[in-house]
Amino acid sequence: MTDGQDTWLPSLVTPTPQAGFELAIKLARMGVKYTQPSDAVRKELRPAYDRDAEALIASSHVIPVHFQTIAAANSWWRG
Amino acid sequence: MTDGQDTWLPSLVTPTPQAGFELAIKLARMGVKYTQPSDAVRKELRPAYDRDAEALIASSHVIPVHFQTIAAANSWWRG
Amino acid sequence: MTDGQDTWLPSLVTPTPQAGFELAIKLARMGVKYTQPSDAVRKELRPAYDRDAEALIASSHVIPVHFQTIAAANSWWRG
Amino acid sequence: MTDGQDTWLPSLVTPTPQAGFELAIKLARMGVKYTQPSDAVRKELRPAYDRDAEALIASSHVIPVHFQTIAAANSWWRG
Amino acid sequence: MTDGQDTWLPSLVTPTPQAGFELAIKLARMGVKYTQPSDAVRKELRPAYDRDAEALIASSHVIPVHFQTIAAANSWWRG
Amino acid sequence: MTDGQDTWLPSLVTPTPQAGFELAIKLARMGVKYTQPSDAVRKELRPAYDRDAEALIASSHVIPVHFQTIAAANSWWRG
Repeated sequence: MTDGQDTWLPSLVTPTPQAGFELAIKLARMGVKYTQPSDAVRKELRPAYDRDAEALIASSHVIPVHFQTIAAANSWWRG
Repeated sequence: MTDGQDTWLPSLVTPTPQAGFELAIKLARMGVKYTQPSDAVRKELRPAYDRDAEALIASSHVIPVHFQTIAAANSWWRG
Repeated sequence: MTDGQDTWLPSLVTPTPQAGFELAIKLARMGVKYTQPSDAVRKELRPAYDRDAEALIASSHVIPVHFQTIAAANSWWRG
Repeated sequence: MTDGQDTWLPSLVTPTPQAGFELAIKLARMGVKYTQPSDAVRKELRPAYDRDAEALIASSHVIPVHFQTIAAANSWWRG
Repeated sequence: MTDGQDTWLPSLVTPTPQAGFELAIKLARMGVKYTQPSDAVRKELRPAYDRDAEALIASSHVIPVHFQTIAAANSWWRG
Repeated sequence: MTDGQDTWLPSLVTPTPQAGFELAIKLARMGVKYTQPSDAVRKELRPAYDRDAEALIASSHVIPVHFQTIAAANSWWRG
């Protein structure tokens, strides 16, 4: 809870693995947003970002680590 | 379970390590799909993607992290 | 507590996952700072750093590993 | 056990750390094979793949993550 | 304790998270040193190394994995 | 214990963290060796490999993951 900022991550607990995967994608995007807070620069980067297979793969690479963290937080939804 | 979307990941539990490995590949592909939802752009990228040894290796790099998560979820199929 | 240096990391414990995510970003930045202590060189690098989608993604890649460590330190804020 | 496919990964348990390391290399290769199932394309890529130091290192980078998973599955062969 | 070499890593235990972070940086540097033992070559590489944003980020990428190991060794300094 | 091959990895247990770090470097090198078994090609690659800061850093990147595995195997040498 940072002063003057929205709460966007209240919990790592999700009802299903799929919801956990989607949370991992959200964390990946928030990491980019915090690293480059300017919307204008991010939009300018978007074309290269969208078209470059290497960047696409690199970007999707961040997701597995976040998903691993979220899966552990949920005891792997073993229940 | 996102509204209006199919359930594609109901569980991380798989009967065998090999089925777990194949689930890891599915997660790797879904990460790319969520990152670049346009089928048209993904198809355009496909030639570079298919032929570039670097991209190939980078892509296969995502698999081990997902497989690690799935293996933990299954207690490494020790039973 | 290094002699003559400020304490910038007293604990890995945070009240919320979001505060943990923001601490992960701080650790990512401190890693860059320790690797390249010269402010002048870091500022010179900043333009490329700010504009290059690849570098942006790579940079945000460090965050998930730190977040994973912090999440474990907080028992995933399971409550 | 996928229908119509060979079982190539019946277990993560190995008698020794070295056998576990060799299994990690097998998993690394299977990740490439699943990502690029065409033998013809893989063979075409092989020269670059064999000669490029960067690709060589990137490729060997996949092995440690798989080895980490296998080591955990075997309780680190602590005996 | 390698014959004829100094002991530079007697323990992973540190008094504080910050001291653990600084040990992670030391391990990152020792990894480079062991990989490229020649001081002359390392010095020659230094200019590119110091100025290249990509290399800087990649280098700082090694730190989080070492920090994760050290944090676990210290039970996350939970106190 | 592969038929007709030397045993080079009998155990992950080491007496000290430093010996564990050196074992991690050995595993990193063995990963390259298994990926590119030809001594001739490896030697040809050596100049680029030795001089390129990026490759140097990437190579040292493999070490932290192996060190993490070995540290866990040794219960972090907590003693």
